[in-house]
Amino acid sequence: MRHAHMRPVVDLIVCPMNNPSDVSFIEKAFQEQDIDPLNVVAVIGKSEGSGLPNDYGRLLADLKVRELLAQLRDTTPQAISDEVTIAISGGSPGTVAPHATLLVQRWEEIDVSQEGEGTGGIVLGRSSTRDILPEHIGRVEQVDATSEAVKLALDEAGVSDISDVHMVLVKGPALTYDAVTKAESNGMDLVTKDPGIGPMGSMCFSNDAMAIGVGVALGEIDRAMVSNASIRRDWNLYSNVALTSSGGEKRKGEVLVVANRRDSGSQFRAGHGVTSDFGESDGIKQALKSAGLDFDCCPSEEQKGQIAQVFAKFTLPPSSATKAGRVTVLEDHEAHHVAKAVGGAIVTSVTGLKMAFISGGEANSHMGPPGGNPVCAIVKI
Amino acid sequence: MRHAHMRPVVDLIVCPMNNPSDVSFIEKAFQEQDIDPLNVVAVIGKSEGSGLPNDYGRLLADLKVRELLAQLRDTTPQAISDEVTIAISGGSPGTVAPHATLLVQRWEEIDVSQEGEGTGGIVLGRSSTRDILPEHIGRVEQVDATSEAVKLALDEAGVSDISDVHMVLVKGPALTYDAVTKAESNGMDLVTKDPGIGPMGSMCFSNDAMAIGVGVALGEIDRAMVSNASIRRDWNLYSNVALTSSGGEKRKGEVLVVANRRDSGSQFRAGHGVTSDFGESDGIKQALKSAGLDFDCCPSEEQKGQIAQVFAKFTLPPSSATKAGRVTVLEDHEAHHVAKAVGGAIVTSVTGLKMAFISGGEANSHMGPPGGNPVCAIVKI
Amino acid sequence: MRHAHMRPVVDLIVCPMNNPSDVSFIEKAFQEQDIDPLNVVAVIGKSEGSGLPNDYGRLLADLKVRELLAQLRDTTPQAISDEVTIAISGGSPGTVAPHATLLVQRWEEIDVSQEGEGTGGIVLGRSSTRDILPEHIGRVEQVDATSEAVKLALDEAGVSDISDVHMVLVKGPALTYDAVTKAESNGMDLVTKDPGIGPMGSMCFSNDAMAIGVGVALGEIDRAMVSNASIRRDWNLYSNVALTSSGGEKRKGEVLVVANRRDSGSQFRAGHGVTSDFGESDGIKQALKSAGLDFDCCPSEEQKGQIAQVFAKFTLPPSSATKAGRVTVLEDHEAHHVAKAVGGAIVTSVTGLKMAFISGGEANSHMGPPGGNPVCAIVKI
Amino acid sequence: MRHAHMRPVVDLIVCPMNNPSDVSFIEKAFQEQDIDPLNVVAVIGKSEGSGLPNDYGRLLADLKVRELLAQLRDTTPQAISDEVTIAISGGSPGTVAPHATLLVQRWEEIDVSQEGEGTGGIVLGRSSTRDILPEHIGRVEQVDATSEAVKLALDEAGVSDISDVHMVLVKGPALTYDAVTKAESNGMDLVTKDPGIGPMGSMCFSNDAMAIGVGVALGEIDRAMVSNASIRRDWNLYSNVALTSSGGEKRKGEVLVVANRRDSGSQFRAGHGVTSDFGESDGIKQALKSAGLDFDCCPSEEQKGQIAQVFAKFTLPPSSATKAGRVTVLEDHEAHHVAKAVGGAIVTSVTGLKMAFISGGEANSHMGPPGGNPVCAIVKI
Repeated sequence: MRHAHMRPVVDLIVCPMNNPSDVSFIEKAFQEQDIDPLNVVAVIGKSEGSGLPNDYGRLLADLKVRELLAQLRDTTPQAISDEVTIAISGGSPGTVAPHATLLVQRWEEIDVSQEGEGTGGIVLGRSSTRDILPEHIGRVEQVDATSEAVKLALDEAGVSDISDVHMVLVKGPALTYDAVTKAESNGMDLVTKDPGIGPMGSMCFSNDAMAIGVGVALGEIDRAMVSNASIRRDWNLYSNVALTSSGGEKRKGEVLVVANRRDSGSQFRAGHGVTSDFGESDGIKQALKSAGLDFDCCPSEEQKGQIAQVFAKFTLPPSSATKAGRVTVLEDHEAHHVAKAVGGAIVTSVTGLKMAFISGGEANSHMGPPGGNPVCAIVKI
Repeated sequence: MRHAHMRPVVDLIVCPMNNPSDVSFIEKAFQEQDIDPLNVVAVIGKSEGSGLPNDYGRLLADLKVRELLAQLRDTTPQAISDEVTIAISGGSPGTVAPHATLLVQRWEEIDVSQEGEGTGGIVLGRSSTRDILPEHIGRVEQVDATSEAVKLALDEAGVSDISDVHMVLVKGPALTYDAVTKAESNGMDLVTKDPGIGPMGSMCFSNDAMAIGVGVALGEIDRAMVSNASIRRDWNLYSNVALTSSGGEKRKGEVLVVANRRDSGSQFRAGHGVTSDFGESDGIKQALKSAGLDFDCCPSEEQKGQIAQVFAKFTLPPSSATKAGRVTVLEDHEAHHVAKAVGGAIVTSVTGLKMAFISGGEANSHMGPPGGNPVCAIVKI
Repeated sequence: MRHAHMRPVVDLIVCPMNNPSDVSFIEKAFQEQDIDPLNVVAVIGKSEGSGLPNDYGRLLADLKVRELLAQLRDTTPQAISDEVTIAISGGSPGTVAPHATLLVQRWEEIDVSQEGEGTGGIVLGRSSTRDILPEHIGRVEQVDATSEAVKLALDEAGVSDISDVHMVLVKGPALTYDAVTKAESNGMDLVTKDPGIGPMGSMCFSNDAMAIGVGVALGEIDRAMVSNASIRRDWNLYSNVALTSSGGEKRKGEVLVVANRRDSGSQFRAGHGVTSDFGESDGIKQALKSAGLDFDCCPSEEQKGQIAQVFAKFTLPPSSATKAGRVTVLEDHEAHHVAKAVGGAIVTSVTGLKMAFISGGEANSHMGPPGGNPVCAIVKI
Repeated sequence: MRHAHMRPVVDLIVCPMNNPSDVSFIEKAFQEQDIDPLNVVAVIGKSEGSGLPNDYGRLLADLKVRELLAQLRDTTPQAISDEVTIAISGGSPGTVAPHATLLVQRWEEIDVSQEGEGTGGIVLGRSSTRDILPEHIGRVEQVDATSEAVKLALDEAGVSDISDVHMVLVKGPALTYDAVTKAESNGMDLVTKDPGIGPMGSMCFSNDAMAIGVGVALGEIDRAMVSNASIRRDWNLYSNVALTSSGGEKRKGEVLVVANRRDSGSQFRAGHGVTSDFGESDGIKQALKSAGLDFDCCPSEEQKGQIAQVFAKFTLPPSSATKAGRVTVLEDHEAHHVAKAVGGAIVTSVTGLKMAFISGGEANSHMGPPGGNPVCAIVKI
């Protein structure tokens, strides 16, 4: 959406959380930085715990953030769902520190002379899909619903050139044991009977249908190539900017687009890269360079100081054979946890960030090419 | 030990293992590379599994390596214990690939004219402590026994200048539940009642007494500063080259020294560095530079090809507060596993190695300064 | 406390919870059963999750129960701490179903003629210790503070005969990593540096100091026999009715006494038993018999219908040798979880209950004799 | 197979194992009990560890048992595979103690007058399927191959009346990640892409195809009702005596039948029961009664002394709703471990046995009715 004589100004504030119920740093950010709570577009965070379905740190953090926003915006926690994208990812292993990133967007009036000019920084777009039925999870219906919602969010962000898009984050629904039991008694056919995050898990099917939806919306994937049979099978279909996740508590897909826009007034600029293998750091460096940092091998200490945030997904490799040896992570009971630890360690070692958003642990995905994953970096201009 | 008119030639061969009972690549190495089995000094490896006390992958790998060596050397598996240092570390999370590194040393005759000349590559030294009693684990008796054994190994390696020493690996004993139960009924006082790897675990006490022993032998630690009270308390006492580990199945400490020696005929050179924080990569780069690679920020692809092996320990940080945020790894039930995943990911991202030796997961240690750890790198000259 | 012309009437309502934030069944109980919220004495429950320190299901359930009670009693969640004992134990493995047991006590006026007469059912007593300092955890100071608080609670319950006491539940403080780090930098001496639940864990030390405090208050343990050296060492000191637990978030010990009283008007009667070995069911049957069920081998289906609740602790055996074989649970990384699963399975198989309160998983304790544990049963008269 | 003038005499010896490589008790049993190693039909055991695919305790125990038998029978470990059924199940949580049960059968000559007479004790039958291809796992091809092999084993055992059969144990193949990767690149269609034990895991599909195969062979299941679509979907098809398990290292199904036979000379008699719900003990009592113990509610201490062994499977319930509450085990990351702990605790509490064979942890199965499982008991006559 383009507002005449106005331009978007986006702020990004990374707030630590000392436990999943601790929103004191978020509260302080509102007070000290004079943020209008009505301008909050998204809260994207990490909570501590196992990161598994029965880890309730995620739910607790989500609840506390929601209650705080409701209070500040003078509305109900329920109403927040339709107004702000809240995506808390559970599990902060290794170097990953629990936190919440506030994404705030205001529109400032500009002179006619300034029209179309700006920092080239980021703009945000938000949208939601309709409710996704259990029998549509992991199937073309979810692909199409996501694709439509992404187009709306792109439109809201006023993005015309797809190459300006550096992250499309979608949080959507997954199956639950209850849904599976119900479908079994109804004779309804679901894409899988495993609600979890294993190779046949509904979270993988949902994440991947949404990732393909992102790819279709951005023109990275030809819709004609997509059928139910290609989801989680034809790994040549992928998006380089999709970062999708899912949970049994969600009904619809919530979309957040992060793009650069010439007339943005934001002091932050986005970029993205794609890792090429499990445990490889070049994709992270690409993302930093794409966001505007100019370095040869590693960012300097000064450049590290400019890195505001990294959003990345680290999924498991498609097979146990890697270029440099047979990894055993596919048979590892803690693979969901270890994948995030691996990603976090590499991001930390390259950027110095500990409060980066590191999600992942699912089996191979349509987010990035086989074995690789998208990484989005945000730097201060 | 210096042999007149002879010089040591050390080879290092990294062999993948497709499961803990797979010694086929080791067998092939002997056949194809014309290695005399009697020259094997040490086998240092990683096995897959949880890496916990009741992970028997470690025992299985140890058994199979021992049986193979016994067969090749025409002796019994039992006899191997006194002749070869076998140290298998359990747990290969994330990018870490199961493998065994053979360290082989032969003595070649040289001309008088060559005396004292060589590649400046590595030399190995081996020794053992006497049996360490349960009540001496984690106490000064273990410190002193280790220190004496390290001196013997240094002597065997013919090392005169301590700055040439880049790794002192020691594998020693830990308490078992049986030992604790027995001590309790005897009224014997042990350093702890926890056999495990937590902050009061006997594995930490044993590793740390041995690390201090290494530091004393090398002059890094003043023996007069060491009492029972300082072990796992006075963190200013530490060694920069000690890499110690322990297990309930061991009775004595087995020592392996890796040093450079001017007249070595080896094509491999060692170096070491020390990490300064959990999730930091500079210590790894220091080790590579110390071993002779000359680079500014990152090793080039060609230089990566020269890296033969990295031996590193990644322990947990001393507190949850790090420079860049509150990490939650101290409260993580899988911290033992995650610490290795973090270390492995950083080593892989810097070096490209997947079959590196990454051990760790204990609480803060006397191996390196608080929060940091020694890293040893071996490069082809 | 005895109220002239009044007698206590205790109700016990077991409410399922469909997830840790679900207090809908508790809310319904208040509505449908006409309970005065001001009469709630305690809420004792189980939440799902790993049951480990970083499982936040416990905190979430506690928060939601607290908020509901505050709303119903027209006060603040903070104020509830001083008025109601809330003890949520994390981890509902195997047959154990998440739930909350409401314990409600009202005082009804009686005729002079009825004075001293009643059902012989239960009465409740509540009290708290002062704040326990970190350096007093697991030591005689905590023993004495607990003992005094238990005496207050006994007094409040109006119990004169100790043999009428069937459970003294105490929820108290444990160390945290922050407390340990702080003590280390202050040179303060703590009982342990391990905050956790292993054999040297602060949760075990705290639970055991409190259990001994209960035993002293009830005359089961001679105070003269108790010193710092005997805590977690002299296993002959134990209580047969103590059920203690601890958490880093608590500052003081909250005490709940459940006893029978001749003039009680309650329709519920308590009893207790003590298990003699890990995986043994006789202690549970003893508790049921002690509460008034008369059976030979197993309760009948009708008698099972009378069983209102079971509160039990299942700790780990003191050694791996049991009468019938070497169990491996001491080396089991999931022992905390498995111990509850074992206890829950036995309680379920004997009683048919799934929403029983099954806590445990720590190493051997002063709650019950070595290898055994107290069990409290409540039956409908 | 019936041998004229001969009758089978079966012995059953339960040997503890102090770790997965400890076969000393088995060795001692051969020495002290004068067992001819050539008469060993099966070794069925439990090893300690996580019980997950990358728990190598199982492989180590299997290897050591195999090597011992090879040595005693003067053959190679490889040859043992075709001669003896070795089934080691990993994971000994809670009360379950690691052990191996030797099943030994000799044929003794008898008089014509004794023909057809005996103790009515047990007889054993063994057989194997052909190799099962990856694409046939979990499908009718595996059902039929198993069914044929079971008929051979019944024939070998000389069983004519199906009601005499109390256990058909089958150990068969499962998919591996390598097999899945290979199939994906070949375009081959497998029943699942998940090698594991979750609701879509290949171990469940394999176990269930084999269980249906057992049911077909015994006439419990009508072959006409079985199609690929009914496997893991039509839960009305089940066997009451099948106890199947699988592993990626197996190629064919190895079958062991345990039945009673009128003319057996064995001092052991078998029986079976079926549990009706997760955490229920009646099925175990039924099995004991079926094997000949006569009791009302619980076996007496003397009768407990007669119980030689229990073989049982404890799978997860079909949904989280049970008669007595919502269990959370389906969402439990450690469900595989906890299910065995639950089963072991109930078996121990009823029988006093700690070295019982308790397998399980998979999702709902065709072994027994929904939520229930077969239990086989062996008692001394």
